[in-house]
Amino acid sequence: MPDAPVPAPDIAAELAGLIARRDQAGLRKALAPWLAQDLAPHLAGFSPEQLATLFRCAQREVAAQTFGYLPGATQRRLLKLLSQEQAAQLLEALPPDDRTAFLQGLPLEVAMQLLSLLSPQERDVAKTLLAYPEHSVGRMMTLDFVAIRADGTVADALAHIRHEGFDRETLNVIYIVDEDGRLADDVRVRRLLLAEPATPLRELLDGNAPALTAGDDRETALREFRHYDRAVLPVVDEARRIIGIVTADDMLDVASEEATEDIQKLGGSESLDEPYSTIPLFRMVKKRATWLVVLFLGEMLTASAMAFFEDEIAKAVVLALFVPLVISSGGNAGSQAATLVIRALALGEFGLKDWWRVMRRELVAGLSLGVILGVVGFARIAVWAQFTDLYGPHWLLVASAVGSSLVGIVLWGSLAGSMLPLVLKRAGLDPATSSAPFVATLVDVTGLVIYFSVAWLFLRGVLL
Amino acid sequence: MPDAPVPAPDIAAELAGLIARRDQAGLRKALAPWLAQDLAPHLAGFSPEQLATLFRCAQREVAAQTFGYLPGATQRRLLKLLSQEQAAQLLEALPPDDRTAFLQGLPLEVAMQLLSLLSPQERDVAKTLLAYPEHSVGRMMTLDFVAIRADGTVADALAHIRHEGFDRETLNVIYIVDEDGRLADDVRVRRLLLAEPATPLRELLDGNAPALTAGDDRETALREFRHYDRAVLPVVDEARRIIGIVTADDMLDVASEEATEDIQKLGGSESLDEPYSTIPLFRMVKKRATWLVVLFLGEMLTASAMAFFEDEIAKAVVLALFVPLVISSGGNAGSQAATLVIRALALGEFGLKDWWRVMRRELVAGLSLGVILGVVGFARIAVWAQFTDLYGPHWLLVASAVGSSLVGIVLWGSLAGSMLPLVLKRAGLDPATSSAPFVATLVDVTGLVIYFSVAWLFLRGVLL
Repeated sequence: MPDAPVPAPDIAAELAGLIARRDQAGLRKALAPWLAQDLAPHLAGFSPEQLATLFRCAQREVAAQTFGYLPGATQRRLLKLLSQEQAAQLLEALPPDDRTAFLQGLPLEVAMQLLSLLSPQERDVAKTLLAYPEHSVGRMMTLDFVAIRADGTVADALAHIRHEGFDRETLNVIYIVDEDGRLADDVRVRRLLLAEPATPLRELLDGNAPALTAGDDRETALREFRHYDRAVLPVVDEARRIIGIVTADDMLDVASEEATEDIQKLGGSESLDEPYSTIPLFRMVKKRATWLVVLFLGEMLTASAMAFFEDEIAKAVVLALFVPLVISSGGNAGSQAATLVIRALALGEFGLKDWWRVMRRELVAGLSLGVILGVVGFARIAVWAQFTDLYGPHWLLVASAVGSSLVGIVLWGSLAGSMLPLVLKRAGLDPATSSAPFVATLVDVTGLVIYFSVAWLFLRGVLL
Repeated sequence: MPDAPVPAPDIAAELAGLIARRDQAGLRKALAPWLAQDLAPHLAGFSPEQLATLFRCAQREVAAQTFGYLPGATQRRLLKLLSQEQAAQLLEALPPDDRTAFLQGLPLEVAMQLLSLLSPQERDVAKTLLAYPEHSVGRMMTLDFVAIRADGTVADALAHIRHEGFDRETLNVIYIVDEDGRLADDVRVRRLLLAEPATPLRELLDGNAPALTAGDDRETALREFRHYDRAVLPVVDEARRIIGIVTADDMLDVASEEATEDIQKLGGSESLDEPYSTIPLFRMVKKRATWLVVLFLGEMLTASAMAFFEDEIAKAVVLALFVPLVISSGGNAGSQAATLVIRALALGEFGLKDWWRVMRRELVAGLSLGVILGVVGFARIAVWAQFTDLYGPHWLLVASAVGSSLVGIVLWGSLAGSMLPLVLKRAGLDPATSSAPFVATLVDVTGLVIYFSVAWLFLRGVLL
């Protein structure tokens, strides 16, 4: 992060010196004022051996947090150099959700070996979290929450919190469960603190407890978080038993990753799944080439369509001049419509059943946009024709053909662009796949057919 | 939100009946189990008069929260129907950041009139927040935080929190300030609870306190939140005095809005600034038409470029057949590159100074992609030529011309697409403006020039 505050830019050199001298006290002192996320980027140039020394000397909590911010490859090399006991300590000190993220990046046998280093209790936690599908809410949750029955008083609840809740990730909310462990309600701790201690806990409840389901996709979780404006939401299993919590700051990373994925797909490439600035060049080319070739194969149909109208082009070369202009307008209108619909779908603004409402809007919008571009296109040719002979004696017919076909092509582009994401979603595919280039390719071929057909109507017997 | 849980779908009918009978007790009972954000959508069909009755009967906190989730127009009509005292109560009960959001949507004179209804203390708060620029951190903050000096013991700090902190938005973190009110550190409340009460507070401090600046853009705040993984960050003024806090759940809305803005721009339209499903059709057409017309005017240059090569087309109509294929490939490569770079810039992966690193990557990537498409294009024509006379006796030269120009055009598209966002950012414009359609238009014109120039090299003396 180039924007991060940097307390001491020469920290890397300072640490390297201390590591070389194995100055444990000096290292602890130098590390003390650093936040793990600010420190990690400075460690990029260190060898795994240097890091191993650093991590052996650092306090366990600092080491674990910093470990969480190192690149995956460095993490794996580092673990190999540490003793089993040191590796286990590091893993145990990682927050459970970070540990899940780390373990799921490993080959299965390595992950299993590391799991065996953990204490039985922590191993159970890790296995539970890893059992949920990738990108599910279950993978993201922490198990640090306080849940109590509603039978006692506020004083009982506070005593329980003091006993149980000290090292929990968040103390803001406690959860009320029934005798089967099912989530019944949530209560803000500050309401407990404000209430008379002898008040029965039940009197503070409102019977309302929004929750996520562990098997839910993280995109669903994101929508729920935005809907409820909460700093933390509980996670329940299918029987509505509370099994964990997810915090809003973790959702920020999800929001960013999901947006990146959608944006990259919209730009007409596979999602890179790693930062643009660090992805190996070959892997990036592979991800981009796939879609580029698919689009190229689709676009080849334009050559066939053009060949079909070769005679018309030979008779009236003037028609060929406007081919790029006309078909790109359809593509632009289509990519606008597709992008707007894809984003609205991602935000949950409407569902598949609303397709007719979307289509009606795009009919009107597409027709209006088509008329606007048609008029501009007509005017352009008409004005030019006053000053040049480029368009020949029949410029008025040419202008009419271009203008009219623009209306049809822009309308068609808007309809195709808005419906394609819905069709993809209906087929169980990601709507974001209907990228701007994808829609443009689709509309280019049909656009050519519309253009030459309209031109034939206007120009037959004259130029054609 | 279609996915929201709906406890009782007939709540609207039930409330309408209770409102008609002015059954205050019944209304309170019916509203009790509802969360404001789930209730608000069911009130969409109510008249302002019905809502006014509902809000008069509901408990103040419920009313204020629900008010916060109503559409802006409904909020304004409703306030007019309430007595000044009722309106003031409603506004006072709104959280300060929601109140800011509501007031900034009003015409100035209405906002001033409403401000005058507030208590002097709340009026000062509202005025302070409104003084910050739109989309700044200052507009989003709440003033509910606990800040103390570091002089006393842990027990002193806890006593202060019990006294001050009860109705604060978040109790998780308290802030340590120096004698001038400048932020010096932050401490998790759970560390206080775990520490020996007689411990001097200073011993718990690490001298580290990431903070946002009130004048910062909210996009900067979003990056800081992702960097520090915090549930809450303090906001400081230029003298580093703490003046408020921002919570991660508020940032989720920002993340979503910023992504929507970028995605809509990438799709080649102005950002709509309101949901696709509810924006009035005329306003949407206006926002989309602006960019479509701009792109259309740019794309007109293709007609001029084509006219420049009119003689070549007349002599070798076969060249015209591949125009859409060749130029769209450049556009697709360009929109890939532009999208990847725009997203990486938004995530802060690199800055303007890294332009050469980006360019070097795109040189290699663009060349590789160009060679891949060039080979596919050459093969397509070569294979077709075995089965049809479409491409004439000189098909090998035509295939070579198409294949070679694809290498140049895809390379040029990748370079132009990756550099344009950087150029826009350098000029102080939003990089997301260099949308897929924008880059495609730019690359179309130059693509034509490259294509016909390469074709001339291969075909002069033969077809040309």
